[in-house]
Amino acid sequence: MGFSTKYKSDIEIAQEAELKPIKEIVQQLDLHDEEVEPYGHYKAKISLDVMKRLEKKKDGKVILVTSINPTPAGEGKSTVTVGLGQGLAKLGKNAMIAMREPSLGPTMGIKGGATGGGYSQVIPMEEINLHFTGDFHAITTANNTLSALIDNHIHQGNELQIDVRRVTWKRVVDLNDRALRNVIVGLGGPVQGVPREDGFDITVASEIMAIFCLATDLQDLKKRLSKIVVGYDIHKQPVTASDLGAEGALTLLLKDALKPNLVQTLEHTPALIHGGPFANIAHGCNSVIATKMAAKLADYVLTEGGFGADLGAEKFLDIKARYANIKPEAVVIVATNRALKMHGGVAKENLKEENVEALSKGLENLQKHIETVQAFGLPFVVAINRFVTDTEKEVKKIETWCAEHSYPVALTEVWEKGGEGGIELAKKVLDVIETGENHFAPIYDLSTSIDDKVKTIARTVYGAKDVEFSSKAKKQIRAFEKFGWGNLPICMAKTQYSLSDDPTLLGRPTDFTITIREFRPSIGAGFIVALTGDVMTMPGLPKKPAALNMDVTGEGKAVGLF
Amino acid sequence: MGFSTKYKSDIEIAQEAELKPIKEIVQQLDLHDEEVEPYGHYKAKISLDVMKRLEKKKDGKVILVTSINPTPAGEGKSTVTVGLGQGLAKLGKNAMIAMREPSLGPTMGIKGGATGGGYSQVIPMEEINLHFTGDFHAITTANNTLSALIDNHIHQGNELQIDVRRVTWKRVVDLNDRALRNVIVGLGGPVQGVPREDGFDITVASEIMAIFCLATDLQDLKKRLSKIVVGYDIHKQPVTASDLGAEGALTLLLKDALKPNLVQTLEHTPALIHGGPFANIAHGCNSVIATKMAAKLADYVLTEGGFGADLGAEKFLDIKARYANIKPEAVVIVATNRALKMHGGVAKENLKEENVEALSKGLENLQKHIETVQAFGLPFVVAINRFVTDTEKEVKKIETWCAEHSYPVALTEVWEKGGEGGIELAKKVLDVIETGENHFAPIYDLSTSIDDKVKTIARTVYGAKDVEFSSKAKKQIRAFEKFGWGNLPICMAKTQYSLSDDPTLLGRPTDFTITIREFRPSIGAGFIVALTGDVMTMPGLPKKPAALNMDVTGEGKAVGLF
Repeated sequence: MGFSTKYKSDIEIAQEAELKPIKEIVQQLDLHDEEVEPYGHYKAKISLDVMKRLEKKKDGKVILVTSINPTPAGEGKSTVTVGLGQGLAKLGKNAMIAMREPSLGPTMGIKGGATGGGYSQVIPMEEINLHFTGDFHAITTANNTLSALIDNHIHQGNELQIDVRRVTWKRVVDLNDRALRNVIVGLGGPVQGVPREDGFDITVASEIMAIFCLATDLQDLKKRLSKIVVGYDIHKQPVTASDLGAEGALTLLLKDALKPNLVQTLEHTPALIHGGPFANIAHGCNSVIATKMAAKLADYVLTEGGFGADLGAEKFLDIKARYANIKPEAVVIVATNRALKMHGGVAKENLKEENVEALSKGLENLQKHIETVQAFGLPFVVAINRFVTDTEKEVKKIETWCAEHSYPVALTEVWEKGGEGGIELAKKVLDVIETGENHFAPIYDLSTSIDDKVKTIARTVYGAKDVEFSSKAKKQIRAFEKFGWGNLPICMAKTQYSLSDDPTLLGRPTDFTITIREFRPSIGAGFIVALTGDVMTMPGLPKKPAALNMDVTGEGKAVGLF
Repeated sequence: MGFSTKYKSDIEIAQEAELKPIKEIVQQLDLHDEEVEPYGHYKAKISLDVMKRLEKKKDGKVILVTSINPTPAGEGKSTVTVGLGQGLAKLGKNAMIAMREPSLGPTMGIKGGATGGGYSQVIPMEEINLHFTGDFHAITTANNTLSALIDNHIHQGNELQIDVRRVTWKRVVDLNDRALRNVIVGLGGPVQGVPREDGFDITVASEIMAIFCLATDLQDLKKRLSKIVVGYDIHKQPVTASDLGAEGALTLLLKDALKPNLVQTLEHTPALIHGGPFANIAHGCNSVIATKMAAKLADYVLTEGGFGADLGAEKFLDIKARYANIKPEAVVIVATNRALKMHGGVAKENLKEENVEALSKGLENLQKHIETVQAFGLPFVVAINRFVTDTEKEVKKIETWCAEHSYPVALTEVWEKGGEGGIELAKKVLDVIETGENHFAPIYDLSTSIDDKVKTIARTVYGAKDVEFSSKAKKQIRAFEKFGWGNLPICMAKTQYSLSDDPTLLGRPTDFTITIREFRPSIGAGFIVALTGDVMTMPGLPKKPAALNMDVTGEGKAVGLF
């Protein structure tokens, strides 16, 4: 976001920051020494024993940060999440942030951090963006151990009669590697395994990542891992990880990763950074364990969903909150002048020009997300995340619009000013928690049919007129209900750019139909993915990958990382 | 090695051990607080700044532990390395161990630890055998980042004119996964990359692992990474990692992994566990940095080579010691009654029976390795690593034989008794360092030709009559010399079971010829690999993988790990 030379880049700010030793951050929290495993001087893993010890303690209030539909202009949802935490801390509140861990693939591919920005970042930024505490490597290893066990089972006689054409479990790497999307494995003759078509996803798209983030403890993790469907046998019946006897080893490989990672913000607000599933074929939130642990350790927990409210908030509320029994106290809906102008029809290259009319038109996108949050029965605040180029007139327009509708609104300047820039928002959030009505409930009932659940999401959250199911999807619904998967929540894989399934329809499209092309069972994670189009689960590198600018100085300092 | 119910298993001993907090281990050493990065309570990474601070301090004495040719009976080289360190500590010496990190692949595949055994183990054994501090994951990621950059370069226009049929750089996973040995990547049409044949190795076989273990500091690491040859262009000229601009990113991905990992033995002797390259297509030793750092922090450093002395000691002395300027003070050659009996012709199932005659015959294998160590100009001690089933007569036979030849020998009972069982060996080692003559020099000169270097190793170390080069190998010698690679050391890839290249020829074969089938350039690591046969660089899983017995208890304790 460093669009002017007057402003420092994110990495400059992060590298100049004075980090407090993690021991000092720990001292602010209700943690015992033996519950804290330091990883270097500025990171720590927190033992799950904390949850048992604090079982009876009242949970802190969970605040969900979401946004309008993302545009190339940027919304700064993570930045607001961090800045709001810092703002609450400035008001003397005991606040904690729960966020996702970034994936290495995009870091090596295109510049762009997942640790906030400006003066609202979590640090040590370099380490968080590289290997961090190794959680994603553990997930990669668990995923690929399952793959190796599948292919070994087939090679060693295939007792389970797995149909090699119907193995759905893919291998993963935490990199952007286009050439691995479609591969053939097992070549080279009889002693080298059984040839079959396969493909690699990026680690964040692994079902194990989703499982990791929905598990409530080690035993629940194992239970979910055992239910993974790896493919189908020659009778078209599902074969699970537990049929292969793999769940114990996978749990063992993940047992240390499952402990949340404690770091700090630039203003030393504690943050748990843990897990990071895709927000299309998975639910897109940090781990349940991190959110629940933060709620035991702080009075206010700031956490976010992926993409806009139509995907991120919906999944947080219908999947994560439901499974984890989390009742959010308020929702923050982030919008920027720039993004609203894009929703109002302005092209990216013209965003610097004031355009109150386009902005007014773009507010219809915000309006729909507000209605969605209201449909979940939750109080909310609109956060105008100010960019340094925004004009007063534009900001005024949003404020007036909110006032006309009696929507709580606050201007935030957390990128430029850190927590100080988040105080107004923090006050508004405290206010709606205090005074707003909260009748939170998921938007659909698990016991309704798969197609009814999809229809409810499409109509209520997207504003669709109808839903069409391909003939493949219809067949799958029947099969899945037969397999006993009918009562699982739905995880929608839809473009994040539009409320519809057409990425070019910005603003608030109406009179559109959502088409479900196929379903994918994520039985371990505990949801059915509904795909509205092609979903990219393995990104490629651009012509000039960010990796080519990276280096290490003689003093061991990172160069070229954002 | 737990062959009797009277004895506890390695994991039982390791799990019952009382670990000292790593802080206490650190206090025994000349380390400053800011040089130590804790990883949990029982592991730490040590900053390379230590090397600069202690630059002028005199180095401790490096003792290399090697063995006779390994047999299925087991030699316990790692156990003796750990036990000898503990034994020296019992004598009041400031001793430290430098060892390899184990690979996850074999852990998941077949039982068998790489952290010593019985009462001579490094701990925390579970963590060391699973993800440890993530070094191997960092190496996997660096290796595969280079792969992604290669395929992306080809896809994005292939400016370097890389011949897709001549990409030699493979991807890796740290698992035993037979189905990945031979694959085709880049399938799926024009936007999914360029199809080509590829294959995966296990991470420990990556050239980056070898580079990591030979680098003397971060800048040397980067220099070596830049020299990696990834394949050839359409004019058959080598293409390097530096041609792709990859070395900065790879160095960044490895910068934290390059710090050695401090742990402890069961008796709290400090140990640096760091790196672990294959011992056939690579040199098979822990990192140069760990060995040199241990030498700054202790008066005696115990370290080991891979396999038997023909491979492990030769490579330690001709490659690692030469590059790192390490002068070993003594060599310990480990032998067991059981293994000697196998070299004397006894089948594995009959090893429990006393057989002094076969043992006498098997001593010829030990004799050859002693001659090799003498050829390097180094003093040595023969260590008889006692198994609890060994008979007195057998032990006596070895002792008598050594006495007849004036070979220093010591009985060790480190598996059963820990450091106490290593005191006799420790005393003998101190004695030969004090009194033995040391004229250490590598066995060949770098300036001789590639074929002369191979011949010197084969004749002097293996006792071969001659060396034959395939026509491919001959062609390669000419090409490699043209590319300027003629002055690099040779890394022999030969069966570990025999002094010859035929694994069935135990004892001391004579009158045999070594056949070099092909060479592989590891220019980043800085050696030319000479292959005498097929080398397995990606193991497969057995019919019943160890992973299937693994689990985690309700308290989070590992089950089924060894």
